[in-house]
Amino acid sequence: MTTKDALVIFTPSGKRGRFALGTPVLQAARQLGVDLDSVCGGRGICSKCQIQPGFGDFAKFGIHVDDEALSEWNAVEERYKSKRGMIDGRRLGCQAKVMGDVVIDVPPESQVHKQVIRKSATQRDIVMDPATRVYFIEVAEPDMHEPTGDFERVKQALALQWQVDGVEADLSILSRLQPVLRKGEWKITLALHRGNHDAAHRILDIWPGYHEGPILGLAIDLGSTTIAAHLCDLRDGAVLASAGVMNPQIRFGEDLMSRVSYAMMNPGGDREMTEAVRVALNGLVQTIATEANSDPNAIYELVFVCNPVMHHLLLGVDPVELGQAPFALALSGSLSLPARDLDLSAVNRAAQVYVLPCIAGHVGADAAAVALSEEPDKSEDMVLIVDVGTNAEILLGNKTRVLACSSPTGPAFEGAQISSGQRAAPGAIERTEIDPATKEPRFRVIGSDLWSDDPGFAEAIKSSGITGICGSGIIEAVAEMRMAGIVDGSGLIGSAEQVGTPRCRAEGRTHSYLLHDGAAEGGPVILVTQTDIRAIQLAKSALYAGARLLMDTMGVENVDRITLAGAFGAHISPKHAMVLGMIPDAALDKVTSAGNAAGTGARIALCNRAARDAIEATVQQIHKVETAIEPRFQEHFVNANAIPHATDAFPHLEGVASLPNVSFNTAGAGSDGRRRRRG
Amino acid sequence: MTTKDALVIFTPSGKRGRFALGTPVLQAARQLGVDLDSVCGGRGICSKCQIQPGFGDFAKFGIHVDDEALSEWNAVEERYKSKRGMIDGRRLGCQAKVMGDVVIDVPPESQVHKQVIRKSATQRDIVMDPATRVYFIEVAEPDMHEPTGDFERVKQALALQWQVDGVEADLSILSRLQPVLRKGEWKITLALHRGNHDAAHRILDIWPGYHEGPILGLAIDLGSTTIAAHLCDLRDGAVLASAGVMNPQIRFGEDLMSRVSYAMMNPGGDREMTEAVRVALNGLVQTIATEANSDPNAIYELVFVCNPVMHHLLLGVDPVELGQAPFALALSGSLSLPARDLDLSAVNRAAQVYVLPCIAGHVGADAAAVALSEEPDKSEDMVLIVDVGTNAEILLGNKTRVLACSSPTGPAFEGAQISSGQRAAPGAIERTEIDPATKEPRFRVIGSDLWSDDPGFAEAIKSSGITGICGSGIIEAVAEMRMAGIVDGSGLIGSAEQVGTPRCRAEGRTHSYLLHDGAAEGGPVILVTQTDIRAIQLAKSALYAGARLLMDTMGVENVDRITLAGAFGAHISPKHAMVLGMIPDAALDKVTSAGNAAGTGARIALCNRAARDAIEATVQQIHKVETAIEPRFQEHFVNANAIPHATDAFPHLEGVASLPNVSFNTAGAGSDGRRRRRG
Repeated sequence: MTTKDALVIFTPSGKRGRFALGTPVLQAARQLGVDLDSVCGGRGICSKCQIQPGFGDFAKFGIHVDDEALSEWNAVEERYKSKRGMIDGRRLGCQAKVMGDVVIDVPPESQVHKQVIRKSATQRDIVMDPATRVYFIEVAEPDMHEPTGDFERVKQALALQWQVDGVEADLSILSRLQPVLRKGEWKITLALHRGNHDAAHRILDIWPGYHEGPILGLAIDLGSTTIAAHLCDLRDGAVLASAGVMNPQIRFGEDLMSRVSYAMMNPGGDREMTEAVRVALNGLVQTIATEANSDPNAIYELVFVCNPVMHHLLLGVDPVELGQAPFALALSGSLSLPARDLDLSAVNRAAQVYVLPCIAGHVGADAAAVALSEEPDKSEDMVLIVDVGTNAEILLGNKTRVLACSSPTGPAFEGAQISSGQRAAPGAIERTEIDPATKEPRFRVIGSDLWSDDPGFAEAIKSSGITGICGSGIIEAVAEMRMAGIVDGSGLIGSAEQVGTPRCRAEGRTHSYLLHDGAAEGGPVILVTQTDIRAIQLAKSALYAGARLLMDTMGVENVDRITLAGAFGAHISPKHAMVLGMIPDAALDKVTSAGNAAGTGARIALCNRAARDAIEATVQQIHKVETAIEPRFQEHFVNANAIPHATDAFPHLEGVASLPNVSFNTAGAGSDGRRRRRG
Repeated sequence: MTTKDALVIFTPSGKRGRFALGTPVLQAARQLGVDLDSVCGGRGICSKCQIQPGFGDFAKFGIHVDDEALSEWNAVEERYKSKRGMIDGRRLGCQAKVMGDVVIDVPPESQVHKQVIRKSATQRDIVMDPATRVYFIEVAEPDMHEPTGDFERVKQALALQWQVDGVEADLSILSRLQPVLRKGEWKITLALHRGNHDAAHRILDIWPGYHEGPILGLAIDLGSTTIAAHLCDLRDGAVLASAGVMNPQIRFGEDLMSRVSYAMMNPGGDREMTEAVRVALNGLVQTIATEANSDPNAIYELVFVCNPVMHHLLLGVDPVELGQAPFALALSGSLSLPARDLDLSAVNRAAQVYVLPCIAGHVGADAAAVALSEEPDKSEDMVLIVDVGTNAEILLGNKTRVLACSSPTGPAFEGAQISSGQRAAPGAIERTEIDPATKEPRFRVIGSDLWSDDPGFAEAIKSSGITGICGSGIIEAVAEMRMAGIVDGSGLIGSAEQVGTPRCRAEGRTHSYLLHDGAAEGGPVILVTQTDIRAIQLAKSALYAGARLLMDTMGVENVDRITLAGAFGAHISPKHAMVLGMIPDAALDKVTSAGNAAGTGARIALCNRAARDAIEATVQQIHKVETAIEPRFQEHFVNANAIPHATDAFPHLEGVASLPNVSFNTAGAGSDGRRRRRG
């Protein structure tokens, strides 16, 4: 017996077992439950099962592997290597057979549940376990004497060759099945989808023979102002492209409540907005596919995160109930549905959509996605997570308890409602510094790493020019204006005389600060106006009030750390955010950016089915705080109008930023900043 | 204790139990598992739970029921009775409370699983257990502090009030849910569908408050020549209307193989035929709904039975593989899908379709439906079931073994390919007698019970006139012509001289027999031509050969009984069928008609979910015989051309019919009858 089998040890898993000589490595891996990929089922076609055998002495395993431990390099491997290339020393697991004791390493890219390593240390890795996977099968040919349908024999093959049971297909697949089977000579590749609530697998597509093409997915963060998407390869989780477009619903109202009002006041208004966003999504699909040089028809899955109003408008549900107490959602659970039910014709016609669950009438699937990405429910310390957008999603908590609310910040942080505002794109001012002595600004523009006073700046930005100021740019500009004494604590811009620079210009009864005059080159004049400052004050007060309300409810005076997130809020400088009073006080090194956490959450749900179950369970545990009916929110909001609202509330700013004690409170500076967006 | 509870006995089930005084009868019934209906869940709205209490001595149960055994007649019952009427002595089970020992009879119409009593003793009763049922619920109102979606609270209510778990809804329902809930003041009625393979219930429709309207279903027998449908009330199984239309695919080919050829020869031809039949189905829905004075929008379910070619063309699958060995079906299993996937826009947009499984490439879901209706697999004696249509489905067997085949009879039996043929409709000659002495015919026409020589006949048929001859009419006419010596054993019509009647007219080199001359009244001249006889000979030879092939395979020389079925084959006279030699010999009283057995099978599957499971299991057990590749089929077919093919093969005709020994075999009578339709 001992001469007829051999010990096989897999690394990195350490799984081991004895196998009869002649057993293919892939088969040994499967029997041991080793995570070794294969699409073709061991037919030497897909090359997904590449392994790295080790030879020589393995002291820690107590074995010696000699050169004949695997069968010889064979013709299938030679053909694959000469055609496609393969790292020297690697073998195909389905071809190499065990001939003696051996140690086999499974390289990361050969694992089914590959990890997508994230660039930033603060972000989570994603283990690949997508709802859509491809399978290669050989189907039995029809037999007149044992008549079964071709589809029934496909199901048999999936059950026998892949242990996949419960397979469904709609007519568009069934009508193509017979020619595809015959063209592939009874060998086909299938894309199968099984959502986290599905018992059955659904065939999304079929191809004759072995199909190499990509299976793509889109993770979409559908915001009130901006729609951001990541195009991912569902085989390895790679992000092929990221793109954003403005939400065209803006023409029906800039913030959520004006859109709800539009739906209330205009019969069919909700339908108009639904159609607008669906058209924009189809456009975004085209844009992002073009950018990635991919076929939009290869997109088989989409995951959406969005706030409740966007959620309802996407689904074609009138959001009117979200505009009045008790803010009842039509549905709060997650939703799985075909993309064609959302008129998403740009993607594959069989594509499936998953929409994350909402937390409450004002706390949506975007907040759920942030929770999925940032995991406050697993944090040891008290973390405040602020997802900056037209509606800010705010989470506060630790592994004991998590609170959530949303706050109607308005679109100012995304560059809308700002006189020179624009979305974050080449040409937009994204960073600003103002010399406190000279009051002269310098800035950086998206598309170049040079500051505006660096040599070569003009040349570097020639292709885009200087076109406007984006969300993170306006936040820095206002904070810098405050630190330079151009703006006082109440938010008023001083006059040229008061401040001592001709950059402060009178505009009617208020003043503006000239950031950049491009008129000589035919470019725009970029000003920060008093109205801009007021818009930022409104936005930051709402954000602060929401965070503060959660801290009150939690019963804490301080937070251990703050995470700033948001599709375009990721570039906000912590110092400037605190100078403005956007966020509560914290040590600046404890304020970090998480990038587009909602988009990341969407991407996690796109790549990993189990994450969908996880977030559905988590949202049940999150306690929702309703800002709209909470008197303390109003109180915090009104009190937070100043910049910052009280210097003694921000001890951590001391030594980091100096805030001049100036006051420009002259007649004519309006107090229009006290309007509230939501009733 | 004994004074605080009472014995409740339900009839006819005999279920009994003791219940606390004050327990509503409906609640007692539910706890005992008594089959007592309720839609409103005991709220006194639906009146489905009517019961008949018995009073006095019940010797067989050993109890006495006194007049106070139930609580007093109450206001809810009084209001219902005065508004809607209720049989004296009946009570509402949800209102009447147990106050003493009592015997409660549940009348048939109050049972959930009502039996639909069939008119004919040979046919099966149907126990109602449809896939679609209505539920009335009260939904919790939204609570800002416990935010869940309205849909989630609907699911909660269904789980709590009806023990219905796993509920799904698509966007068309979700987008209507909020206004419906508010209009109904948080009380709504839902139509829920759960197919026999579904884990979850799907919401098909919602109404504010309690909804009384009908839930309708359509059972459709989609034949090559005729599409027949029954419109049923899914609450009680009542057939509200039956209607048929011609299958418009006839213009692409009269029989199955010509349609497959059309698809082969014309790119997109299958698509044309698919669209044609779907358009016709929508028209049929309108026709049948109008006939029943029903709203087609109340049709929530459709069940289809059809042969494999019709099956594929209905589903939009190119039938080309069915035209060549090995006759591979694209799919053989049953299929559940939304009606909109079949472009059936005339029914409710949420309507669901169930298609019965096919047995083999030439033996379809229609044969499965016949097996479901006629149950050969449960028969003690050897039964031959012949479903007469353009393609005949033939089943032979008993509880030990069942064989099935199909035979390409062509459309002659349905009145097509016959010079004066028409479908069975008012004005069509359906029965014929010919006096053997005078060779004079008399006949009956659909729409009147009078024979053409009865007084008042002309008046009785005035509205329709005499328009043609239907399938059963032509069979009788040819058999009568044979018995009257107008046609000889080879199928030739004699000349006027040979036969001795001027009704035999020369038509080119052959002769025709004049059945009716309506020219004087501006009506048609109805002839039976030599070509008509040849068409009938082809059809009956194919039918006989199929039956004979199954008998050979089964190893039997005789059958115990024969069932004739078919949408329009139900009116065939057994004697005439045997004179023709359509069916094998049998005692005439053992030859019965089953009506449209395929349609009945469809109706059973429509009304009873368990029947779907049953037939799916049964088709796995049926052994299929492929006529197209069986040399004995050809042999039987060729040998069966004569009328009947051999008098000694039909001993049971002796004493029932006399077959004159005539021969008109003159030059010119073509032998074109030997063409075969299928290769």
